[in-house]
Amino acid sequence: MSKKILILPGDGIGPEIVNEAVKVLHCLRDDFGLEVELTDGLVGGAAYDAHGHPLPEQTVALARASDAVLLGAVGGAKWEPLPIAVRPEKGLLGLRAELGLFANLRPAILYPQLASASTLRPEVVSGLDILIVRELTGGIYFGQPRGVETLDSGERRGFNTLVYTESEIERILRVAFDSAMRRDKRVCSVDKANVLECTELWREVAMRVGQDYPEVELSHMYVDNAAMQLVRAPKQFDVMVTTNMFGDILSDCAAMLTGSIGMLPSASLNASGQGMYEPIHGSAPDIAGKGVANPLATILSTSMMLRYSLNAAEQAERVDAAVSTVLEQGLRTADIAADGDRRVGTAEMGDAVVAAL
Amino acid sequence: MSKKILILPGDGIGPEIVNEAVKVLHCLRDDFGLEVELTDGLVGGAAYDAHGHPLPEQTVALARASDAVLLGAVGGAKWEPLPIAVRPEKGLLGLRAELGLFANLRPAILYPQLASASTLRPEVVSGLDILIVRELTGGIYFGQPRGVETLDSGERRGFNTLVYTESEIERILRVAFDSAMRRDKRVCSVDKANVLECTELWREVAMRVGQDYPEVELSHMYVDNAAMQLVRAPKQFDVMVTTNMFGDILSDCAAMLTGSIGMLPSASLNASGQGMYEPIHGSAPDIAGKGVANPLATILSTSMMLRYSLNAAEQAERVDAAVSTVLEQGLRTADIAADGDRRVGTAEMGDAVVAAL
Ligand SMILES: CC(C)[C@H](C(=O)O)[C@@H](O)C(=O)O
Ligand SMILES: CC(C)[C@H](C(=O)O)[C@@H](O)C(=O)O
Repeated sequence: MSKKILILPGDGIGPEIVNEAVKVLHCLRDDFGLEVELTDGLVGGAAYDAHGHPLPEQTVALARASDAVLLGAVGGAKWEPLPIAVRPEKGLLGLRAELGLFANLRPAILYPQLASASTLRPEVVSGLDILIVRELTGGIYFGQPRGVETLDSGERRGFNTLVYTESEIERILRVAFDSAMRRDKRVCSVDKANVLECTELWREVAMRVGQDYPEVELSHMYVDNAAMQLVRAPKQFDVMVTTNMFGDILSDCAAMLTGSIGMLPSASLNASGQGMYEPIHGSAPDIAGKGVANPLATILSTSMMLRYSLNAAEQAERVDAAVSTVLEQGLRTADIAADGDRRVGTAEMGDAVVAAL
Repeated sequence: MSKKILILPGDGIGPEIVNEAVKVLHCLRDDFGLEVELTDGLVGGAAYDAHGHPLPEQTVALARASDAVLLGAVGGAKWEPLPIAVRPEKGLLGLRAELGLFANLRPAILYPQLASASTLRPEVVSGLDILIVRELTGGIYFGQPRGVETLDSGERRGFNTLVYTESEIERILRVAFDSAMRRDKRVCSVDKANVLECTELWREVAMRVGQDYPEVELSHMYVDNAAMQLVRAPKQFDVMVTTNMFGDILSDCAAMLTGSIGMLPSASLNASGQGMYEPIHGSAPDIAGKGVANPLATILSTSMMLRYSLNAAEQAERVDAAVSTVLEQGLRTADIAADGDRRVGTAEMGDAVVAAL
């Protein structure tokens, strides 16, 4: 039966890069028998501009009815003066919540062809392959109460709540341990259990869940130390699992270690395998519309989609192989180009991947 | 009039490294006319072991009566099973709160003599000189309510509160702007204003305070992007200012960029210039008692103390110069040693600094 994919280009470079991923999906459908139906929708600033809200009801309905969502990126300085409730980011956060996408998988991989793009010394990062598992529908991102109140003194006070239940912690830890079983069997759970009670509970639950995975080596690290260790010796990590907020920070840090942030995909999954897939980079409004953005992170997000939500691992491998091929051919968008490389634009890169499928 | 300094060696390598800083203070007192009186106290695990609490009342009383506190480091795996309320870290957090030390200054400097110790490519970090200004007595570290509760379902739920009032935000921003005025006149305020209302207020107050400093260039950055940018191009920053939790993470990341975490001091100040001074590194229980720890971060913390709390800038310069001298002499503790360097132990390094004063 044909699988339904919702395409949400979003803002900034979103439409351009998603366009290349759609070319890849079309090719897989037309030439390789992938049974998919693609629908378009609005989210983020684009949705706000059209409907006055970053997550229109029709988008939520379309997302619910889909097997997977492919998203470009949302946001931009243009919408920054808006209140949090209607900013482009709210569209993304709303989708995560509506679909229950609690498990965010963010691989940080150094592509051997791009080793020179990292700001770290080659010996520190060569062969880097970390998977960050970030909790995505809880924590301080969604905790209540939240807001800004005025005190009797007349001064204002802003507040947010970090909150996790045992079951929320348990299910994300299971995703981390299950992932580790297919990798190097090591999980590092990151918390601030020496200061925050909420993450003291996190550590306790991590230990308990760990007992169900005797083959996996579990370690715990404070978040400040984890940020340090990512810079000092990132290859010590296999799977890292952490809260929504810490995962936001650490996954961006880890991604940047690879130097190829334009290359890194992500998957956000719910309990029934439905998923949203997006590049980890942002909407980069400064280069939007110029045709220079790197579409590979979005194309690789499509590959994750094939694997995790469309049950099409062979097609995923086809896409991964095509991306390797274009890198071997020396094709580079500006973000990953070094002297002597052949520089290409967004569309040329997408076309090259399609040709290599 | 003689200034009072409270010496709190703490745990792990704390006593060893503080011992070398005390040698420096004794030398300044005996040979260079610095008028100081030193008293010893217990904090952290050492205090817990002796008195059952990481911050005994007599330590608080001694700290209040002092012009400055010199602290080694607290904590260690030995005390990790303890509840948050009596862990060694609570001694440190309690002192920060009791003395109202809201402004934490953490320079991240690359010492030219130690450029090869960084894991980053030399061109990315050479000349690095960032000052991180971290709010230290508010935010999620101290917010109420906090704890772990049992829900009707029988499942537990952990929670902490991120909270800032306008005046708390304003005073730390002023410290950042005042610091920037003595540096390169650029402040980057780090928040997560696209998700957390509390930090939306932070950004608003930052903009308002910025109007009082027309000469200073103010920028805003989301914390995930800040973590990325620290790895991508750290030299873009002059002063970074942020919340307690974000500052904890980013300052450790920034410190590690320099590769010389054993070299970096910190100051925690209150509104009346009273301060606590400590190395940014931890208690390193694995090397405690071996006489190999680097005492320079603690000695440089003493220099910050001379400058900020003892009104003795000339003495501070003397200490800084002595540290430069021993580095020029090629003396290196294990953490900063490369092939061909002359390796020394903790005491030998301290003695060399004293000799160079
Ligand atoms: C855009 C923003 C709301 C989002 C987040 O903070 O989760 C982004 O940074 C990410 O990591 O996907
Ligand atoms: C020991 C710990 C409580 C402390 C903190 O989190 O503030 C430390 O990491 C620091 O940065 O000084």
